[in-house]
Amino acid sequence: MARIESKLAALGLVLPAPLQTPPGVVLPFSMVRLVGSRAIVSGHGPLNADGSLAQPLGKVGAELTVEQGYAAARLVALAVLASLQRALGDLDRITAWSRVLGMVNSAPGFVRQPAVINGFSDLVIELFGAQVGAHARSAVGLFELPFGIPVEVEAEVEFAA
Amino acid sequence: MARIESKLAALGLVLPAPLQTPPGVVLPFSMVRLVGSRAIVSGHGPLNADGSLAQPLGKVGAELTVEQGYAAARLVALAVLASLQRALGDLDRITAWSRVLGMVNSAPGFVRQPAVINGFSDLVIELFGAQVGAHARSAVGLFELPFGIPVEVEAEVEFAA
Amino acid sequence: MARIESKLAALGLVLPAPLQTPPGVVLPFSMVRLVGSRAIVSGHGPLNADGSLAQPLGKVGAELTVEQGYAAARLVALAVLASLQRALGDLDRITAWSRVLGMVNSAPGFVRQPAVINGFSDLVIELFGAQVGAHARSAVGLFELPFGIPVEVEAEVEFAA
Repeated sequence: MARIESKLAALGLVLPAPLQTPPGVVLPFSMVRLVGSRAIVSGHGPLNADGSLAQPLGKVGAELTVEQGYAAARLVALAVLASLQRALGDLDRITAWSRVLGMVNSAPGFVRQPAVINGFSDLVIELFGAQVGAHARSAVGLFELPFGIPVEVEAEVEFAA
Repeated sequence: MARIESKLAALGLVLPAPLQTPPGVVLPFSMVRLVGSRAIVSGHGPLNADGSLAQPLGKVGAELTVEQGYAAARLVALAVLASLQRALGDLDRITAWSRVLGMVNSAPGFVRQPAVINGFSDLVIELFGAQVGAHARSAVGLFELPFGIPVEVEAEVEFAA
Repeated sequence: MARIESKLAALGLVLPAPLQTPPGVVLPFSMVRLVGSRAIVSGHGPLNADGSLAQPLGKVGAELTVEQGYAAARLVALAVLASLQRALGDLDRITAWSRVLGMVNSAPGFVRQPAVINGFSDLVIELFGAQVGAHARSAVGLFELPFGIPVEVEAEVEFAA
């Protein structure tokens, strides 16, 4: 069993199935785009194990607490890892996390975006370690996100041939 | 005639002139920045053929319908292609679309950003095909965009020497 | 003395100390991530010389004028340069600015984001010149930014081994 997959199993974490696109929605792009040694990751939201959008939807600071936002960002990390596994075959091929753009669906006056996106960063670093898992990051407050998801993250990693 | 340019002509599409900067505005950056084999594309809005900002301005879900937003995103794709043509000389040099960040000027409660940014993605895939045109994408709701434009897209493509 | 550092000194500009993380905040990521010849820069806000968050906080178009937003964006450039200096050892190693994403904490109806982010771009071009300093850029209006900072910029530069 691969290293990252065993760590996920040891943590009792399951990578979700591909996004079940909501009815009437067409998403004509790739969840992960491989260009040279770069895997460029589309914006992902939080998913249930079956690929449906995880609840609760809404804005952090209103419908969601910071803790619920953190949990949603952790689910986003799992959805991103699932897409990377499908694109790369094996998560152990990832040699470096490069960039994370964390977008938090924010209620007026909510300014704790970093505490929310830590749900993503903490899991990446726990799984990949401080060297490979290190990443540049922005965590910012969006006005609206698709379908009302509370968190969306786009990212980029390096991978080995 | 080049391949992509002929497809554009066959579709009756015209690439716009460079942005006519609104009075009093200074934009001290490059519309496309070439770094190695990467062409990094600045945020573009929808333009008329003469390079002026296309109407309507405003927020999708208020001043613009989803269909008008889709049409605006398609105009943004044409503006991006025009900038890439000026930077690369020939759009056939593009070997891969890498990344698209679609930003929709969103009315409160508007959550159909993907349907809007499809106006950009659909044209890219129609012109470049499923292999070259594939791209990672995020489509998110911004609070305000410069000059009140309804859609702004920044992107990155790979090109051949 | 290095070239960029002398220019900074000649302008009377000082690079700030590392961000003094506000109490209770954990930021588990790298301010700059080096990947090959790319230095990927996390979102930075405006800092005082001692690394504390610069005042005023708030939204441009409400708590801040455009001129104050421009000054804040210039402080963001200094914070980014300070992080790049710590990561690269010497700012003269930068061979190209690639990408700038300028995010302006925007009051309702504020649409002059480019005039604000010019505070960042103008300093980069003054210091690095038109060739090296050229960059692709987006300047957009965010709904909320962490801690209420008025401007956040993430960026990417190329550097020489």
